[in-house]
Amino acid sequence: MPSTAIDLERLRALLEGINQYGFNGETGGYNRIGYSDTDMAARDWLLDQMKNDGLTVTRDSVYNLFGRYGPETGPSILVGSHTDTVPEGGGFDGSLGVAVALECVRTMRDANLTPEIAIEVVVTAEEEGRFGGMLGSQTIAGTLTREWIDKSRDADGTTLVEAMNAHGLSPYDALGKGRKAEDAVAYLELHIEQGPVLESTGQAVGIVHSVAGVRNLRVKFTGKANHSGTTPMNLRADAFAGLARVGAAIPGIIDRHGGENTRVTIGKADLYPNFIHTVPGAAEFVINIRDTDPAIIEAVREALEAEIGAAAADNNLAFDIAEQSRIEPVKLNTELSELLHQEADRLGLDARSMPSGAGHDAQTMQSLCPSALMFIPSRDGVSHSPEEWSDWPDIEKGANLMLAALIRLSKADRT
Amino acid sequence: MPSTAIDLERLRALLEGINQYGFNGETGGYNRIGYSDTDMAARDWLLDQMKNDGLTVTRDSVYNLFGRYGPETGPSILVGSHTDTVPEGGGFDGSLGVAVALECVRTMRDANLTPEIAIEVVVTAEEEGRFGGMLGSQTIAGTLTREWIDKSRDADGTTLVEAMNAHGLSPYDALGKGRKAEDAVAYLELHIEQGPVLESTGQAVGIVHSVAGVRNLRVKFTGKANHSGTTPMNLRADAFAGLARVGAAIPGIIDRHGGENTRVTIGKADLYPNFIHTVPGAAEFVINIRDTDPAIIEAVREALEAEIGAAAADNNLAFDIAEQSRIEPVKLNTELSELLHQEADRLGLDARSMPSGAGHDAQTMQSLCPSALMFIPSRDGVSHSPEEWSDWPDIEKGANLMLAALIRLSKADRT
Repeated sequence: MPSTAIDLERLRALLEGINQYGFNGETGGYNRIGYSDTDMAARDWLLDQMKNDGLTVTRDSVYNLFGRYGPETGPSILVGSHTDTVPEGGGFDGSLGVAVALECVRTMRDANLTPEIAIEVVVTAEEEGRFGGMLGSQTIAGTLTREWIDKSRDADGTTLVEAMNAHGLSPYDALGKGRKAEDAVAYLELHIEQGPVLESTGQAVGIVHSVAGVRNLRVKFTGKANHSGTTPMNLRADAFAGLARVGAAIPGIIDRHGGENTRVTIGKADLYPNFIHTVPGAAEFVINIRDTDPAIIEAVREALEAEIGAAAADNNLAFDIAEQSRIEPVKLNTELSELLHQEADRLGLDARSMPSGAGHDAQTMQSLCPSALMFIPSRDGVSHSPEEWSDWPDIEKGANLMLAALIRLSKADRT
Repeated sequence: MPSTAIDLERLRALLEGINQYGFNGETGGYNRIGYSDTDMAARDWLLDQMKNDGLTVTRDSVYNLFGRYGPETGPSILVGSHTDTVPEGGGFDGSLGVAVALECVRTMRDANLTPEIAIEVVVTAEEEGRFGGMLGSQTIAGTLTREWIDKSRDADGTTLVEAMNAHGLSPYDALGKGRKAEDAVAYLELHIEQGPVLESTGQAVGIVHSVAGVRNLRVKFTGKANHSGTTPMNLRADAFAGLARVGAAIPGIIDRHGGENTRVTIGKADLYPNFIHTVPGAAEFVINIRDTDPAIIEAVREALEAEIGAAAADNNLAFDIAEQSRIEPVKLNTELSELLHQEADRLGLDARSMPSGAGHDAQTMQSLCPSALMFIPSRDGVSHSPEEWSDWPDIEKGANLMLAALIRLSKADRT
């Protein structure tokens, strides 16, 4: 145990405080969709908490919250995460990182550890992508554009502008309101892993070196729907046969062109007409390619497209490939990662250097300032679900690592 | 040209007469679903036609129609097909075989060719399987069972009993009303191929040696739905990966265990939850296996089940295989096929000996009496669709072959 340590019971109460908003007793899920009433209420509650803690609290035009501890002016270290959820999400994703950030500040305050460089607890808005981006951290990082705002709407067709207007806010007010780089010393975030790696290796924390990029290819094979009994195999144009061949080729393509962080997934596939006795006349599917290395993404994409072409030729199919979305990989700050590894060693924690396969505010913040992301284990790797869970002893370890990092970073001399 | 030949214009008018019932002007499709009002009306119209032709017309308890030409007593040769359609079906499937049968009798009558053995034009009921069987030919062949009637309902939940009661009929009246084998000399049916083989080979007619059996295996792979970014490839239980492997193995399994008549189709497949960014936690699909040889069906099924097991083991999946339906292959009568080939040669028609991949009344009738089935080409192999089409010159050839066969068979000495 370090000489100064977080108060796990207080942390748990804080997380429960956030989670009183949007809880669905029937499913066990949490519903704080970005700019919903429950989302706004949870942030109002946190605003009051931080005020009661004596922090200097501000909120910006997209309702990002900031609770500042330490020097009132000058640069600051940002630490936090988000409190919005996906529909029927879990009670840890995002909220835990916010609660840990505030608990660290409370611990420092109680221990009379006044930072030489200010620490700002940040509660970002709309991280889960109801509107397809990470609005809160985009605002802080200054990467928001008018074009993006203009076209942003959720799955139900509600525009970002409408959703924010309902709360007296406007996303256009956030344009050009990014922090200045010289005022942002660092951004730190603790998050649940949302994957099975730490649980499977038994390691306490993951220190993320890079956030994977994403390339989604929407593929359509068009063949000919025919009677499954009357159409000989050699006279078919079977769209499922093309899909199956591409799917079966994925492991080999990863072996030849991928690396240890490569993930290729076909999660959505639809056959037409999808009748038992009809050779599928069309198959539509999306290939989701992820890696931390843009060159690997490109090589895997090329190999997949070649396979698609060959599968089409061998099965008398026409094909179409469209890039549906593209997010470039982000390398997080090496110096901050190294510092986290050092502090983990000091605390006797077994820390894993690992990529993040999911997107997080830290990847947006890295464009503004040195950013770091740490993971704690997720039970069964499950997230975005009422079954999402992390064990409290693991949370305590992660929170104390965050505390150690903040204590060190907030000194004028961080060595 | 044979000395006696069918009248193509009269045949065309007869087919158009049937097709005045159930036509959908918007789609071009025909809707004479078994025991619908349009189906009943078309058969009433045919009943009048056959009466006007001077045939002895009867109908049985499921509304199969019979129009007898020749000796009023003693054995008969049955010739015909069905007039019911699938929803939005085509104008040739079934109806053409009925029209050809009646046109052949009209031609014989006009040519004063009185058969020594009676010819009965038969219009079977409910061949398209609204209730999952071939009710009309099952009734004639005497293969109907009370258990089958009890459980028969259509896709909307209407029972066979309800559908028939609406027209004052009861399927239970058909039990035990099968023809006597000694009264049934033969059953002959002309049908569109519903496949692309004759068109691709340029042959005029197909003479069917066997009707393929069908085995439908419903397969479920159960894995674990997980985030496509956070779940490393080696920690996945990806149900789509299992499906793709099974799909990709089909050509090899046919090479090793199948024959020229083997057809293996995955026409229906569904992933769960079917989201782009989620590793599929389950995949349900149906494998449709068809062949004319029961031993090949069995060998292919065994190889597929082994592949399913291996795909599950390699992808950390549970699996379940259920036999959803099973129809045994039927070998049609060799002597009748041979007679059709001889008559085709005599007419100068290039006839192909071929299997039928689709089910037909002839396969049911074969359990009662020697049965034969001939195909004429289908444009693009399409059927069960408004696009279904056969060219009139092809129809004429097939009809004249049927005429020749009937003339020969209806002689006391058929040599």
